[in-house]
Amino acid sequence: MTAALSATSANKTIDLGPAVELVSKEEGHRQPLAPEFVSVEDFSPLEVAYDFGHVRREDIEAGPRNIWRYKKLLPVPSTVEETPNTEPGCTRLVRADRLAKELGLKRVWVKDDTGNPTHSFKDRVVAVALAAAREFGFEVLACPSTGNLANATAAAAARAGWRSVVLIPKSLERAKILTTAVYDGDLIAVDGNYDDVNRLATELAAEHPKWAFVNVNVRPYYSEGSKTLAYEVAEQLGWRIPEQIVVPIASGSQLTKVDKGFRELGQLGLVDASPYKVFGAQATGCSPVSTAYRNGHDVVQPVKPDTIARSLAIGNPADGPYVLDVVNRTGGAIEDVTDEEVVEGIRLLARTEGIFTETAGGVTVATAKKLVETGKLDPDAETVLLITGDGLKTLDAVENHIGPKATVPPSAEAVAKALGY
Amino acid sequence: MTAALSATSANKTIDLGPAVELVSKEEGHRQPLAPEFVSVEDFSPLEVAYDFGHVRREDIEAGPRNIWRYKKLLPVPSTVEETPNTEPGCTRLVRADRLAKELGLKRVWVKDDTGNPTHSFKDRVVAVALAAAREFGFEVLACPSTGNLANATAAAAARAGWRSVVLIPKSLERAKILTTAVYDGDLIAVDGNYDDVNRLATELAAEHPKWAFVNVNVRPYYSEGSKTLAYEVAEQLGWRIPEQIVVPIASGSQLTKVDKGFRELGQLGLVDASPYKVFGAQATGCSPVSTAYRNGHDVVQPVKPDTIARSLAIGNPADGPYVLDVVNRTGGAIEDVTDEEVVEGIRLLARTEGIFTETAGGVTVATAKKLVETGKLDPDAETVLLITGDGLKTLDAVENHIGPKATVPPSAEAVAKALGY
Repeated sequence: MTAALSATSANKTIDLGPAVELVSKEEGHRQPLAPEFVSVEDFSPLEVAYDFGHVRREDIEAGPRNIWRYKKLLPVPSTVEETPNTEPGCTRLVRADRLAKELGLKRVWVKDDTGNPTHSFKDRVVAVALAAAREFGFEVLACPSTGNLANATAAAAARAGWRSVVLIPKSLERAKILTTAVYDGDLIAVDGNYDDVNRLATELAAEHPKWAFVNVNVRPYYSEGSKTLAYEVAEQLGWRIPEQIVVPIASGSQLTKVDKGFRELGQLGLVDASPYKVFGAQATGCSPVSTAYRNGHDVVQPVKPDTIARSLAIGNPADGPYVLDVVNRTGGAIEDVTDEEVVEGIRLLARTEGIFTETAGGVTVATAKKLVETGKLDPDAETVLLITGDGLKTLDAVENHIGPKATVPPSAEAVAKALGY
Repeated sequence: MTAALSATSANKTIDLGPAVELVSKEEGHRQPLAPEFVSVEDFSPLEVAYDFGHVRREDIEAGPRNIWRYKKLLPVPSTVEETPNTEPGCTRLVRADRLAKELGLKRVWVKDDTGNPTHSFKDRVVAVALAAAREFGFEVLACPSTGNLANATAAAAARAGWRSVVLIPKSLERAKILTTAVYDGDLIAVDGNYDDVNRLATELAAEHPKWAFVNVNVRPYYSEGSKTLAYEVAEQLGWRIPEQIVVPIASGSQLTKVDKGFRELGQLGLVDASPYKVFGAQATGCSPVSTAYRNGHDVVQPVKPDTIARSLAIGNPADGPYVLDVVNRTGGAIEDVTDEEVVEGIRLLARTEGIFTETAGGVTVATAKKLVETGKLDPDAETVLLITGDGLKTLDAVENHIGPKATVPPSAEAVAKALGY
């Protein structure tokens, strides 16, 4: 059906477009749409299920130049673009021939999500979370975060005129505090580590019924936002699924949603349901999913993160097992790379394509390199790399590796000499 | 004529699309297209003149989602999108109702150029400079800069596979050095101030025939890139020119090119040639054009800059007199704002619309506020604000003004108490 579903919650009709119910990931228990994230039946994560009806390319192409063009594929109201929210998405898909050559791949595309409003893919998920939260009657947008999510949540709330509550560890770098504080929400520094902050968020979500913690109580909606990466890549390739895609793994949610997005496009007949392989990228200092993959396990053993790729540093990734499912089903692979390789990955992308990514992007590029070297990525297959965040936010990672080629007196002769002319 | 012009330079046919010659701004002396920036006849700046022929909206709308959709209006080869370059442009035009309300304006749009590849409008001008430079046979892309231009030049050269030479004052902040150095061009720190660096660039441009200094010897082409801001605003409004636009002034080039862009669209029948007013924004600590405007002068007295808005801190703005012409002709005005007001402007935009701009954007927002208060901006007229750069690059400007609302122990009770619940 293409008309919006009507559900009832607290005497209000809920319009979340094509979303019809929540389904538990383990045993498939179904329940009405609500701001809940864990099944009380089997304690597994809840995921949004849809009744898409007929969706046509023309409808999407006639939509706005942001993720709301895919509103008929997302758990958002049918009038979502009429309410204040950020308008992320429709970021560049860059043909990366110089990078391809260095990697030894025939054709590479970089999905450059640094072009989003706060320069990471988190704007996508937060925008969907805000739209759903509004529909459920929430009044405050909240999150625990150490970086990109804090920026995205505070910015989206500001634009919507909502109050935000963003919880960060007190020890966070000053730059990350500033880039959140500027939006003037309620930024709270917590005297504890990120685990403390996360625990606090779950507690607060239970106590404050008007607070939507984007990655806690409205997580099923939030995480669907990552599907838009798959939709955009396919549309930008001319309605076609790439043969290979490399995705960084933090909680693992993004990778599973990219796969979900590709599958939906095929099922809806928006693209040919051609085979594709999904590859996962982790930093060795936080590689629980890569380790499980290597050992052939289907459970993921938690680790204590120690890597410069802090936006990927989730030691106990909630969607780890589902990542393994996707990678194994599609015939992909998972690899991890050292912090030195991460820095090399950042520099390689910058020097070949003029794109400056954060550490997570360095993980993706360096992992792609390793996957080619180990024969897991097919050099002749078309490959997409997801670059999900901006180098301006993780300057410390490259600080000791780069700088001016020379310092010279103000004379043309000195410059020419320094450059070997 | 719609076919590209053929000119001859160094035995090579030059294809710069609709560009036909260079014209001196003062006395209108014409000369062939060449990498020159000052008329030898009247010593005034040279500007590109065109023979556009017939340009249709449909041709533009069918083009790529970047500035090359306007290639028939720019001094670039007709096949420009086939050669490696950055693909800036098509950034968001955001309806800013919450900002409008605070400013006391009925309808405001923010052109958010932080979405460009290196997060400022400089990607537009550098992309055009690179395209023209390639056509003229240059092999190195160069510039003197203290920030945004350095990022854009180094990134564009990297993507094109060109060598870059970027000259910066040795004393530049470490963050700005890193965001340029990462692209791995020839970044040279000069033991001198920005004036020394600038002088050096002119000297080097004369000595190295293969070096295109984007803002020196190929400046006439480079500066045309700013016209794309006007084209995009008009197209995004549904092929319509806004009644009022507020533009920051550094050299003044951007403001004059936005005006040029609007005029061209009207002359070509791509929009109704409706009246519009162009307003200029400066920081009081570097306000030579605003001062001249206030005093009714038509020459601009140079000043020694002293403002946090460093990307606008050009004390002797080359296009100052032409800015005065545009503002007076269209019935606009120019104002300047203190550094305190600049910070307030940054914070106002962030808190109302979730957009974090650099100091130049703060100048634009704060000036708009002042122009409303002094009755110069019509509150009932539709107004566009050009936000040309990113707050992530000027964190030091807000550093002492913002921070967490509270620091609390890791307990839900403490958070609720800190927030007044």
